[in-house]
Amino acid sequence: MKYISKIFQPLIVSPRNVASKSHEISSNSQRLMVDLGIVRSTSSTGLFALLPLGVRSLDKLTAIVHAKLNSLDALQISLPTLVSEDLWIKSQRLQVAGPEVMRMKDRQDRRYILSPTHEESITDLIASVSPLSARQLPLRLYQIGNKYRDEMRPRYGIIRSREFLMKDMYTFDVDKNLSMKTYEAVNEAYEQIFSAIGIDYMKVEGCTGTIGGTISHEYHYPASIGEDQLLECSSCNHRVSQEQLLSLNEITEDNLSCSKCGDKNLKKTSGIEVGHTFLLGTKYSTALQAFTIGSTPLHMGCYGLGLSRLLGAALENLSTETELRWPTSIVPFTVCIIGPKNGSKEDKTATPLIEDLYSTLTKSLPVLHDDIIIDDRSHLTIGKRVLEARRFGYPYIVVVGQKACQEIPQYELLDLKAETSYLDKSELISKIHDLTKTLRTFPNQNYMDTYSVSSDVLTENSLK
Amino acid sequence: MKYISKIFQPLIVSPRNVASKSHEISSNSQRLMVDLGIVRSTSSTGLFALLPLGVRSLDKLTAIVHAKLNSLDALQISLPTLVSEDLWIKSQRLQVAGPEVMRMKDRQDRRYILSPTHEESITDLIASVSPLSARQLPLRLYQIGNKYRDEMRPRYGIIRSREFLMKDMYTFDVDKNLSMKTYEAVNEAYEQIFSAIGIDYMKVEGCTGTIGGTISHEYHYPASIGEDQLLECSSCNHRVSQEQLLSLNEITEDNLSCSKCGDKNLKKTSGIEVGHTFLLGTKYSTALQAFTIGSTPLHMGCYGLGLSRLLGAALENLSTETELRWPTSIVPFTVCIIGPKNGSKEDKTATPLIEDLYSTLTKSLPVLHDDIIIDDRSHLTIGKRVLEARRFGYPYIVVVGQKACQEIPQYELLDLKAETSYLDKSELISKIHDLTKTLRTFPNQNYMDTYSVSSDVLTENSLK
Repeated sequence: MKYISKIFQPLIVSPRNVASKSHEISSNSQRLMVDLGIVRSTSSTGLFALLPLGVRSLDKLTAIVHAKLNSLDALQISLPTLVSEDLWIKSQRLQVAGPEVMRMKDRQDRRYILSPTHEESITDLIASVSPLSARQLPLRLYQIGNKYRDEMRPRYGIIRSREFLMKDMYTFDVDKNLSMKTYEAVNEAYEQIFSAIGIDYMKVEGCTGTIGGTISHEYHYPASIGEDQLLECSSCNHRVSQEQLLSLNEITEDNLSCSKCGDKNLKKTSGIEVGHTFLLGTKYSTALQAFTIGSTPLHMGCYGLGLSRLLGAALENLSTETELRWPTSIVPFTVCIIGPKNGSKEDKTATPLIEDLYSTLTKSLPVLHDDIIIDDRSHLTIGKRVLEARRFGYPYIVVVGQKACQEIPQYELLDLKAETSYLDKSELISKIHDLTKTLRTFPNQNYMDTYSVSSDVLTENSLK
Repeated sequence: MKYISKIFQPLIVSPRNVASKSHEISSNSQRLMVDLGIVRSTSSTGLFALLPLGVRSLDKLTAIVHAKLNSLDALQISLPTLVSEDLWIKSQRLQVAGPEVMRMKDRQDRRYILSPTHEESITDLIASVSPLSARQLPLRLYQIGNKYRDEMRPRYGIIRSREFLMKDMYTFDVDKNLSMKTYEAVNEAYEQIFSAIGIDYMKVEGCTGTIGGTISHEYHYPASIGEDQLLECSSCNHRVSQEQLLSLNEITEDNLSCSKCGDKNLKKTSGIEVGHTFLLGTKYSTALQAFTIGSTPLHMGCYGLGLSRLLGAALENLSTETELRWPTSIVPFTVCIIGPKNGSKEDKTATPLIEDLYSTLTKSLPVLHDDIIIDDRSHLTIGKRVLEARRFGYPYIVVVGQKACQEIPQYELLDLKAETSYLDKSELISKIHDLTKTLRTFPNQNYMDTYSVSSDVLTENSLK
């Protein structure tokens, strides 16, 4: 059983807002995430600690991503963060890299970058085992780890921080056609990942920029603080980033027209970029000599998902000024149970019902296993805790209060649309069952099973 | 179903040994891990890429660690790798830090270290929410992530690399007695983790060094390449690291005696340190002002487990000069199935039996779900592939060959002690069932379920 008092959620009562202390530009989501104990600023600008509730949400997100990439036969690897500058000189990226690329020297004055992206590293690795035979292709390798970018002005918390969690994937194919097939398959997987997360997203034709390549798409969450302008043609619905449209047409911002049909009626949306796919061609494989048999360079693609940024952008997209709202697929806990205030007249009768309710719920609805939290801060009134639970954004709140003392206990179920119903235990279970059927994903259902099953094994071993 | 041809395992045929290329001192395990496609040197000394089989093993190890720390009510967080030098000046560690600590400046010339350990960061975080009330304690926070140490002489591959995966945990208690209780509980959890992994380990009284504190214990895997000398008293069995004994007694190496009973008969073993626990007292909480109510500094502990190093040390401990051996708890795959050579006379009859065997095995023995690999390199003879499977160290090898063409198909089961038995399908399943009962852990059983369950959900959503 999980209790709020045990999950280390330091709540900040204004005006101790750490985010504003560090002079970063803040946003709704960032302020709420800090105030509600999900992330925390460190003493350095643009660097954040993820607290347990933040890690829990990212774990759910990561499970969705693993699942989908696994079904693409992608394989997980891990490349070092420190990358020799020599590699970036070979690909000619260091020569054009700005101060966003973090650099360091080791004790022997060898120079490294803290990698913002790993095209060079992966291509060098593949070059060291090339030529690859057709039988080894397509090859799809991904990793999940920290990336670095020395932002001039870090802002909006984990939406634009200097150290962030990314999923980056790199693909290798024998020729252009097959790499285009891979590109389409990965973009299809991205669309499925975004559907599983559940927020309406915008996919647009993107700009390849310093990474290079021939085709690129960006995935955005709409948000007023979004720094990218996205355009949708009213005639043919073609979507493109403004940056890309400007670079295609060499025109001014006042003179935009659809690159597909020429219509000038373009709908503009601000977006936060959370994913980016590139068909790279042979830029890196030629420079770093990653070949297929016959010494032809491999055709590559690269595919990023900013996981910590995605979490921040999702909350920014959904939340109000005063209340956090999560995609149900990645909310840290789906159900919050609130019991009576300590010493109230229903304390004695209702409090013992909580554990029973918890275990009945998890047994009847395995999907909720480990996904229920009990707000045991019984020094606070029920009303105060319901307000806090709404502010945090738990999708379902169950109150075990006055009516739970009736002969047949009645539980109060609240959702975030402020709909309330009083239900007995079996009605409650069947109602929550119906509600969670409409929840789009529970990737964590078995995520935590990993732990509990292993615990049994561990116990068994330790008794040996 | 998983196939060897699809797991990206670049095999190195000598003399293309990348490890020796980079002038690092190598070891049995390191050479075999590179040759067998588990890790790979990058172009920079002391920095390694983990390939899919290495990631898979580390995932199993990580699942064991999560499980056990979860049962301690420890909570997972994530602190930035980049830590301001100011924090390390406050704790006075920067002043004594050697060139092992990696450093860098950002675009505004602010100075950071790439953290080798996070005592300062976590204490600063707790200070920012202190005073902590007794209700919030004990607090146990851990993370799993990359750490950095600029080794003068990186060696033995992932056993002593410059970027490595660590689990680090930090605990906070209200006073000395309670922090000692926490220290004991965590050490008990460590012993259970090491039992679950399954290699005989040595726990010794350790030296607190630059981290500081009053009590410390080290966990070692014995290995001839181990750089720590461990002493065990023949009279009272007290175990201590030689470094600690020398620092206690200010004597020479020739003049050692047991610190508990004075006996001079000490048995010496070389070990690779894979875990270290420290009772820190209030060194960091005083310096960085992390208090409990009443302004008394919190009592801390810190607890490291070198996860990538542990994998390397485990393989070093178990392997021979020519063959890898894994703890069954963290072997990438438990069973390897080998079918007939392409075009052989048993090809037509026996090959179709493989898929059937695979699905029967996983259905009858859920513990093997996703833990079986098929060696589909059917251009190689069965004999060649059996040798390779033994070299890799799969605990159980099933050959579907000539005898599988009999009216009642017979399968050949080999284990690493070179015991062979011919069994029909139901005998094979019951034998493997018995064998896997003696396997100590299968933490991955549900690890991969995460993915498959999520896949279903994703599919369902994408059809919506």
